[in-house]
Amino acid sequence: MASSFGERLRVSVFGESHGNGIGALIEGLPAGEAVDFDALARFMERRQGGRNALSTSRKEPDIPRFVSGIFEGKTTGFPVCLEIENTNTRSGDYQNLADRPRPSHADYTAFVKWHGHADMRGGGHFSGRLTAPVCAAGGIAKQILVRRGVFVGAHLRSAAGVQDDAFPLLPDAALFDAVAAKAFPVLNDAQGEAMQQAILAARADGDSVGGTIECAVTGLPAGLGDPMFDGVENRLARVLFGIPAVKGVEFGDGFALSDLRGSQANDPFCIGENGEIRTETNRNGGILGGITTGMPVRFRVGIKPTPSISRPQKTVSLSAHQETQLEIKGRHDPCIAQRAVPVVEAVAALVTLDMMLTE
Amino acid sequence: MASSFGERLRVSVFGESHGNGIGALIEGLPAGEAVDFDALARFMERRQGGRNALSTSRKEPDIPRFVSGIFEGKTTGFPVCLEIENTNTRSGDYQNLADRPRPSHADYTAFVKWHGHADMRGGGHFSGRLTAPVCAAGGIAKQILVRRGVFVGAHLRSAAGVQDDAFPLLPDAALFDAVAAKAFPVLNDAQGEAMQQAILAARADGDSVGGTIECAVTGLPAGLGDPMFDGVENRLARVLFGIPAVKGVEFGDGFALSDLRGSQANDPFCIGENGEIRTETNRNGGILGGITTGMPVRFRVGIKPTPSISRPQKTVSLSAHQETQLEIKGRHDPCIAQRAVPVVEAVAALVTLDMMLTE
Amino acid sequence: MASSFGERLRVSVFGESHGNGIGALIEGLPAGEAVDFDALARFMERRQGGRNALSTSRKEPDIPRFVSGIFEGKTTGFPVCLEIENTNTRSGDYQNLADRPRPSHADYTAFVKWHGHADMRGGGHFSGRLTAPVCAAGGIAKQILVRRGVFVGAHLRSAAGVQDDAFPLLPDAALFDAVAAKAFPVLNDAQGEAMQQAILAARADGDSVGGTIECAVTGLPAGLGDPMFDGVENRLARVLFGIPAVKGVEFGDGFALSDLRGSQANDPFCIGENGEIRTETNRNGGILGGITTGMPVRFRVGIKPTPSISRPQKTVSLSAHQETQLEIKGRHDPCIAQRAVPVVEAVAALVTLDMMLTE
Amino acid sequence: MASSFGERLRVSVFGESHGNGIGALIEGLPAGEAVDFDALARFMERRQGGRNALSTSRKEPDIPRFVSGIFEGKTTGFPVCLEIENTNTRSGDYQNLADRPRPSHADYTAFVKWHGHADMRGGGHFSGRLTAPVCAAGGIAKQILVRRGVFVGAHLRSAAGVQDDAFPLLPDAALFDAVAAKAFPVLNDAQGEAMQQAILAARADGDSVGGTIECAVTGLPAGLGDPMFDGVENRLARVLFGIPAVKGVEFGDGFALSDLRGSQANDPFCIGENGEIRTETNRNGGILGGITTGMPVRFRVGIKPTPSISRPQKTVSLSAHQETQLEIKGRHDPCIAQRAVPVVEAVAALVTLDMMLTE
Repeated sequence: MASSFGERLRVSVFGESHGNGIGALIEGLPAGEAVDFDALARFMERRQGGRNALSTSRKEPDIPRFVSGIFEGKTTGFPVCLEIENTNTRSGDYQNLADRPRPSHADYTAFVKWHGHADMRGGGHFSGRLTAPVCAAGGIAKQILVRRGVFVGAHLRSAAGVQDDAFPLLPDAALFDAVAAKAFPVLNDAQGEAMQQAILAARADGDSVGGTIECAVTGLPAGLGDPMFDGVENRLARVLFGIPAVKGVEFGDGFALSDLRGSQANDPFCIGENGEIRTETNRNGGILGGITTGMPVRFRVGIKPTPSISRPQKTVSLSAHQETQLEIKGRHDPCIAQRAVPVVEAVAALVTLDMMLTE
Repeated sequence: MASSFGERLRVSVFGESHGNGIGALIEGLPAGEAVDFDALARFMERRQGGRNALSTSRKEPDIPRFVSGIFEGKTTGFPVCLEIENTNTRSGDYQNLADRPRPSHADYTAFVKWHGHADMRGGGHFSGRLTAPVCAAGGIAKQILVRRGVFVGAHLRSAAGVQDDAFPLLPDAALFDAVAAKAFPVLNDAQGEAMQQAILAARADGDSVGGTIECAVTGLPAGLGDPMFDGVENRLARVLFGIPAVKGVEFGDGFALSDLRGSQANDPFCIGENGEIRTETNRNGGILGGITTGMPVRFRVGIKPTPSISRPQKTVSLSAHQETQLEIKGRHDPCIAQRAVPVVEAVAALVTLDMMLTE
Repeated sequence: MASSFGERLRVSVFGESHGNGIGALIEGLPAGEAVDFDALARFMERRQGGRNALSTSRKEPDIPRFVSGIFEGKTTGFPVCLEIENTNTRSGDYQNLADRPRPSHADYTAFVKWHGHADMRGGGHFSGRLTAPVCAAGGIAKQILVRRGVFVGAHLRSAAGVQDDAFPLLPDAALFDAVAAKAFPVLNDAQGEAMQQAILAARADGDSVGGTIECAVTGLPAGLGDPMFDGVENRLARVLFGIPAVKGVEFGDGFALSDLRGSQANDPFCIGENGEIRTETNRNGGILGGITTGMPVRFRVGIKPTPSISRPQKTVSLSAHQETQLEIKGRHDPCIAQRAVPVVEAVAALVTLDMMLTE
Repeated sequence: MASSFGERLRVSVFGESHGNGIGALIEGLPAGEAVDFDALARFMERRQGGRNALSTSRKEPDIPRFVSGIFEGKTTGFPVCLEIENTNTRSGDYQNLADRPRPSHADYTAFVKWHGHADMRGGGHFSGRLTAPVCAAGGIAKQILVRRGVFVGAHLRSAAGVQDDAFPLLPDAALFDAVAAKAFPVLNDAQGEAMQQAILAARADGDSVGGTIECAVTGLPAGLGDPMFDGVENRLARVLFGIPAVKGVEFGDGFALSDLRGSQANDPFCIGENGEIRTETNRNGGILGGITTGMPVRFRVGIKPTPSISRPQKTVSLSAHQETQLEIKGRHDPCIAQRAVPVVEAVAALVTLDMMLTE
């Protein structure tokens, strides 16, 4: 189903940006897992706007209310339904958009598909706000994974064309924690500063920028994932493309491998310090034949620039069936890539935990 | 399930490279669809080796035998099982590999996951040979799509770092046919010649190269696909990563969008020559919010260099648990990207038809 | 997933009897369908306790709150999440049960499976209370079906061994409405009176009784359903067995057919009054080969006696691992079959609508 | 999908009665499981016709050919495709049936659904012959279950209204083996003799009879199955209704429970001889809340009389759209229930193994 994913751990997202609320139904969580609600709130805060000049002015606490599946602070083994209230909705900003679809948004395709019945205020079900329940679910998954020795981390690999450093071959949990604690989630703060300047420059021009995110999952055993169409890459890619604005996904060195020779791209097997079989390099991103090698699973997602820009844009009037101009008012982030960092982590955690439960 | 994909049109692939045979079970094909077996054979021939100096010397006719689901040349509406016999298997070439996993192959991960029970001769179920039944299924889907006005085409966008031209904004069926008829599937034959020289140079060095493939699907109505996790991108990506050696997938301008500003990346809506609503550019690859815009669906996949190279490589002995060297003998393509072109088309056709049947 | 069903129309039930709330997530409802909330409340009231001497004293309004998927009184085409608050919970009644599993309840199997983590107060996720959200979802489906000319009705076919009349060959919507309006849902009120006396007699003995429910779906076209494992019988049976206490499902004349000869059991085809092809009898329940014939789909479910009885019963102490006695206090219905009548209708409506959307 | 079932162990059936062949694709079998092909042949022989006067004269060896997934006599962990050739097809017998649908067969519903494209010779994909690959798959599952201490057995509980004895409370594997070895699969041979006389009497009248089958699965741990819609009952029922002619399914004492009081129907918990927690009786069929109790899973299926009878029957001509007569010639079993006994075992084994793999 469209807004759900997962096999043994199934997450279904519901809600519209300006409706009563949003939330997630999480089926298949193991029983007896403690949930640290404070840690969850901190994780969710990482994706929220309002923290600095780069984000929209819409501020909502986004505290999930657990309707079911939690008893005395632990999972019961039954479906967890969590709901987040919509409190800060200013529909007025969007009313004039109904007839003139915003370029690169889902307005037009939703209009065609649902014949005008979709509640598209604020982007409706397509709003980036729907990533909040994904983070709530993913935050719980991350806590469960840590207890199994599996760690998930991500950072902004580039923004506005400015590059951050790449993760090292074997990133540790401390590095993940350090990035997660930063207001701007990069490894190299100087580069992060340059990114922020570029983002602010775009905003000053009434424009926006895109970026890329690098994510790694460490501590996985070799042998996770299934062949062909249920490999680690297949499952992650399917869900990652559900994050709004993601237009590319690559594993390991990804597209860069296409320009190399085999002798440059292959990862030689070797014996590690602890006697384990590993690879000397990790250009394949910890995945061979769709199955984990035991090296960190490593991937990158490409995020397009925020479609909402304040500059005038060409579009059409659906009612008049003629070309026209559009100026989008209201709150928009000049860059959403940095806010998507915890969302990518959440997806990685959920897909990983699902695969571990499927074994 | 691992080796299956699709919702209303489900394709399940079976077989091992050196077992009795390989094949596909296709569930959900509409009833009464004529199958042009000659056209199907021509389509399948495009992925086969043995056609020129670039391919391996393993030559098999790969004629699918239809066990079920076809009656008097038409689909019955019931499951179609097709089988392709394995005739040309020289297991001797691979026997010494069982203990020394080939770098960048699935040998090691399969060994860990299936505890040595997997029949990995010739790559087993992970072999590129398993793309033959995918092509058989996809070839049938392509024929059905043409009757609905939908066309699928692909070409080798790059190989060994040499670039082909890109598809034009609105590629037509004649262009797809022209590329499909070529021995080397590129738009610009001069560039194709350069690619082939680079491939042969790599082979002379006992090495291999990678490449990228661009694919387009035209004639689609707006409104196809579902939101969030069942959009066109999600479904295509999940299956495309099932093609061996694919390490990246991007839609429209993909990762390149991440370096642009919104004003450069957004596709303005306009009124087309026939009064239809379309976009002036197609940087989003015909997909917004996961749903088709009516513009061509356009995507690119990155394929890593053939892992099998004849140069000596470092690996480990699983039995001795120590590092060692490996020289891979036998038949290998110095580049598999050009043979993957029809496989990408097959996947695109199957996923597209599935989405059309789901409406 | 355990608590979900449906292919194109997917219903996921969540909540525990004594937790914060219960509810359902409904994915795949068509867009633009008006919801008559008053009619929905009336439908849901039919399954509620507190209406007469036969039901438990637990009274809750059970008004669903719609969190998402409804806009201006119509479905948006996106997931509908509805939530029902738990207000009337007296956990004290159940605390002494935790150690001594109630016979014929899920207490013991849940204890083994979830290692004591399940919140089993009041039956937890296994409580009959979880059928309230199923009715909410099914009530919406019934409204949509009526607009498509499809009607669903059910009645108590027997209770405590007392039989009601059977539905006629071609029951009409007026008959369904008439039964739905009754306080005790039978066709023959004299027999219904006898049933109620038998139920009260059982209660006076500290005991309980079971019953059977007959359901019919009319107005269906021929050709609905898929062969083998996705036929009408397969899909209905899978979900019907999810209603607590259901232990048998049969279609048409069901088990009684096993004792007949073919010449008695076959339904001859004939031409109906309006020139349509139909069958003279309907012993197969409107289904042949899993696919609708156009005659009413007709089935019967068997419901075991309420497991909770006030008589002393033999059980074991889980902590002491020895045999012991149990007296169940608190509120229990001496018969739940009459309250399950709208639940069976809800399931029939949801499965039917799903099949219609899958075509 | 219509002709597939299972979650972690997925069986997809293909083929038409008079096409090239029939078969099954089995995905998810664990790796390294030895297959005893002789035992499998003996199991499959139990469902075959031609063994005595009660069965059709169509004799086919029905030896499955394994195309994939078996290597050196063991499962590889990859999809197993098995194919059974159709050799003994006399299409002429059925040609005059195309226009006049046989009562109680799928001819009419298939005609409406597939618009005449379905290959319905010999019943096509609806033929009882399609249970042969189900038996092949189930026979393998039975062998795997035995290694895990789980045993599956069934017998003809009634035929033509004549009753066999019921299974004892705790049937052992020896009893299952004894029934499986009999030419007519009943516990009480005198009753079996009476059944056979009744069947032959019906045949002499150009008629047919139905029957019921009782099946038990022993050795299961408590805690198998999932709540609500994925319980043991839900999963078994969904697949059992895929066996042709099954019109009813009940667990434990099933419909008979509906006429009892709770004090009669509840199964008291007690401590068994080996200190294990069990129930004194097993009226619930080893399942509470959809989850196994550790007692034998026990269920009954009702099978309608063979629809094909040689007596003249009333039907319609589809081309003339008028009522007419039909006489069915060719081979038909006067009772198929005894041949369905191993099919029910096969389904029980496959569903059980799937649930065990899902844990």
